[in-house]
Amino acid sequence: MQYRTIIRILGLLVALFSVTMIPPAIVSIIYEDGSGLPFLLAFILCLITGLAIWYPNRSFRNDLRAKEGFLIVVLFWTVLASFGALPFLLLEQPQMSTTDAFFESFSGLTTTGATVIEGIDYLPKAIQYYRQQIQWLGGMGIIVLAVAILPILGVGGMQLYRAETPGPVKDSKMTPRIADTAKHLWYIYFSLTIVCATAFWVVGMNWFDAICHAFSTIAIGGFSNYDASLGHFNSVGVNVVCVIFLWIAALNFALHYAAASGRSLKGYFHDPELKTFFIIQISLVLICFSVLIQFNWFTDAGIAFDQALIQSVSISTTAGFTTTEFSNWPVFLPIMLIFSSFIGGCAGSTGGGLKVIRVLLLYLQGKREVDRLIHPKAIYSVKLGERALPDRVVEAVWGFFSAYAMIFVIIMVGLIATGMDDVTAFSATAATLNNLGPGLGEVAATYAEVSDSGKWLLILAMLFGRLEVFSLLVLFSPTFWRS
Amino acid sequence: MQYRTIIRILGLLVALFSVTMIPPAIVSIIYEDGSGLPFLLAFILCLITGLAIWYPNRSFRNDLRAKEGFLIVVLFWTVLASFGALPFLLLEQPQMSTTDAFFESFSGLTTTGATVIEGIDYLPKAIQYYRQQIQWLGGMGIIVLAVAILPILGVGGMQLYRAETPGPVKDSKMTPRIADTAKHLWYIYFSLTIVCATAFWVVGMNWFDAICHAFSTIAIGGFSNYDASLGHFNSVGVNVVCVIFLWIAALNFALHYAAASGRSLKGYFHDPELKTFFIIQISLVLICFSVLIQFNWFTDAGIAFDQALIQSVSISTTAGFTTTEFSNWPVFLPIMLIFSSFIGGCAGSTGGGLKVIRVLLLYLQGKREVDRLIHPKAIYSVKLGERALPDRVVEAVWGFFSAYAMIFVIIMVGLIATGMDDVTAFSATAATLNNLGPGLGEVAATYAEVSDSGKWLLILAMLFGRLEVFSLLVLFSPTFWRS
Ligand SMILES: [K+]
Ligand SMILES: [K+]
Repeated sequence: MQYRTIIRILGLLVALFSVTMIPPAIVSIIYEDGSGLPFLLAFILCLITGLAIWYPNRSFRNDLRAKEGFLIVVLFWTVLASFGALPFLLLEQPQMSTTDAFFESFSGLTTTGATVIEGIDYLPKAIQYYRQQIQWLGGMGIIVLAVAILPILGVGGMQLYRAETPGPVKDSKMTPRIADTAKHLWYIYFSLTIVCATAFWVVGMNWFDAICHAFSTIAIGGFSNYDASLGHFNSVGVNVVCVIFLWIAALNFALHYAAASGRSLKGYFHDPELKTFFIIQISLVLICFSVLIQFNWFTDAGIAFDQALIQSVSISTTAGFTTTEFSNWPVFLPIMLIFSSFIGGCAGSTGGGLKVIRVLLLYLQGKREVDRLIHPKAIYSVKLGERALPDRVVEAVWGFFSAYAMIFVIIMVGLIATGMDDVTAFSATAATLNNLGPGLGEVAATYAEVSDSGKWLLILAMLFGRLEVFSLLVLFSPTFWRS
Repeated sequence: MQYRTIIRILGLLVALFSVTMIPPAIVSIIYEDGSGLPFLLAFILCLITGLAIWYPNRSFRNDLRAKEGFLIVVLFWTVLASFGALPFLLLEQPQMSTTDAFFESFSGLTTTGATVIEGIDYLPKAIQYYRQQIQWLGGMGIIVLAVAILPILGVGGMQLYRAETPGPVKDSKMTPRIADTAKHLWYIYFSLTIVCATAFWVVGMNWFDAICHAFSTIAIGGFSNYDASLGHFNSVGVNVVCVIFLWIAALNFALHYAAASGRSLKGYFHDPELKTFFIIQISLVLICFSVLIQFNWFTDAGIAFDQALIQSVSISTTAGFTTTEFSNWPVFLPIMLIFSSFIGGCAGSTGGGLKVIRVLLLYLQGKREVDRLIHPKAIYSVKLGERALPDRVVEAVWGFFSAYAMIFVIIMVGLIATGMDDVTAFSATAATLNNLGPGLGEVAATYAEVSDSGKWLLILAMLFGRLEVFSLLVLFSPTFWRS
């Protein structure tokens, strides 16, 4: 293991991360909220620590293998999220415990969006801004991880998206070098954020709110600078803008990349994952709408449609914005929406969950098993569009699903062991493992009441979800640490 | 499709099934409980209907293909369970609705053991006996299905146990013809039942209770002729006998067959599934015991151990006998035991759940995925003992797990749509799909309070579980019905 090369990279990352403390400091100055000092301190701490880690190892620049790739990915999220907790620890208002500070930071950087803070509306502007920005940075990290790194590492069948392999994303020919790919992806991500913020401003938000919500929309993070989340605005315009940009952010960024580089717009029209994604989205909206109408849940059909639209899109893409108490919606709607977050966004998006492509492949593979039983001697392959998938991808997707289910059960039983009730434990595990945010029961609004050990378990769930289970799971294998 | 051959076989089965109405009629005569007439009527109805179905088709004796095998298996359970509902419909006490009669009969024949009857203690002896006997008959059917039929049909990776393939059950060389295999299996099943009944009698049960409970123990069914289930006896001896025979019944009957035919006792010692089964069993008992001790749940350690033993074995093997309200046990024990029922018994046993072998294979395959990520160029195979498994078995097991999870979610959301609360819906789905019986919440004791539509959904879950999902699922495929 090339430890010193890994440490060098980490040092650089932490030093770079220090820069992200400057914008909130500026926000503090603009709004004169008197909370600038913690960010200045955090900036200095990150910069010095980062450089101190980097300097003695600066000459270690060996080539890295897949093994080291996993370690860097895991350390990227755990180390940066830990340093990201600094402002929460240093702030006087709100006074946060160490556990709470880490929970909020990990929830932000993994774009989960579960919060332990009550009274967000009354926080200093700088810390309001900082929470949103950390989600946006996490979203950036995910795009690069999902589009450029996981296909190379081959996690959960994502070798499917490797640039060399033929198929749906073949035309997008991702720039081979990760750094270069990352630069292009960030450019798209940045542009989308600006367009989204402008759109929010056009439908009536002030610039501060527009930027804050654009950050958490494009990152599919779900943090808001209001306790009432999107519901604060009570505006159809805001909801519609949010839905449109959540849909854009929940698509594979490789498709956006292909479109942006002008090479092919038809990627959007020929992608089987995108098609499945919209079929699921529209079905969910229609089911929610018809049940709400049947129960006369809202005063008129227009409001019912607006709420059905924003809530089903927000939960199923794993954003987790709330505009109404959907957890009290009639009969099976709350649990259906929680289950829909297991599907989540497309691969290569900022969304969480299993990802649409994997659910589609599980369905196709299930269909193949049935066909095999009926005609035992025929040979069936799993096809995506015109393309037959190699067995290794098929097996990796199935392995992903099984591991996801196993982690789910372990974390849920662990939470109940800390004294949590069954429904809350179920939905809290789903909400963190799928990087969704809000759950049902005790955690429908905030996670403030969860015990400390429960919070650490949920942090673990967020990491497992965000790192596509296997990136973290490999570290638990003795084989990994054998040289 | 050879419809007339299938109808001929069904007619024969129904006519044969009529004979099972005679023992309860005799019980009625012995105890003079005045409930003999419904059984006599049911006997005549089954016999006449069966012969009427069989007679016009008696000359159709074509060879059957795999497709027709699936149809016969599904019809076996649905048609016999429907005819099995006759006595419940005809009886004056208890007065049962059509839904309740079908629920009780399907729950019996699938060895689920969920009941809608309250006040079982006060029922006529004949109907008490009949409920136990229908479980015993269901258990017989399962053994033949699991050991002789599913390996040929190849459901859920069970081709692993096909006699021709080399491996752990190679030595047992199952007699190729199903009928002959069935005869031998029933002989073992019958002998075990006699030994079990005698053991129950030795530890203090009267003969009637001993036979009734031997029926539902060997079938891992969980019905009892007392509302308080095994708790009625409040006897360590009864609990220990029950545990021992549940363990025997939860092993692969192919192993018993090999041992009984004197060819090899070492099958027991070299079977990786058996080893895993006992590791899981012992772990569960120890976890329950230590938590109960820690919480001072019982007055002394002896009682705590007795209860930990009987309840964890009863739930994890999917028998579902209760001796105490385990659903009120501290913290995570109830949910852990419900989750353990997903593992269930060994393949080829009367137990339900996913089966130990599949869980073991899922674990081994997950481990392989991790190894593949660490060393992408190495070639790994999934090994059971010394034997590398073909990809097709590996994929079939993964497909089985995914389909199981999908059916689980659909039934659970369906139950919530009927107005059931989340915890009850979760545990009721688990308890029926795993053929366990008792759940948590509203269905911890009986299913009497569940709505009619809810009961039919649960009947569907019992069938999906008992028919190893795919035997029933293939019937929903258009390919199946294409000639
Ligand atoms: K989220
Ligand atoms: K049972």
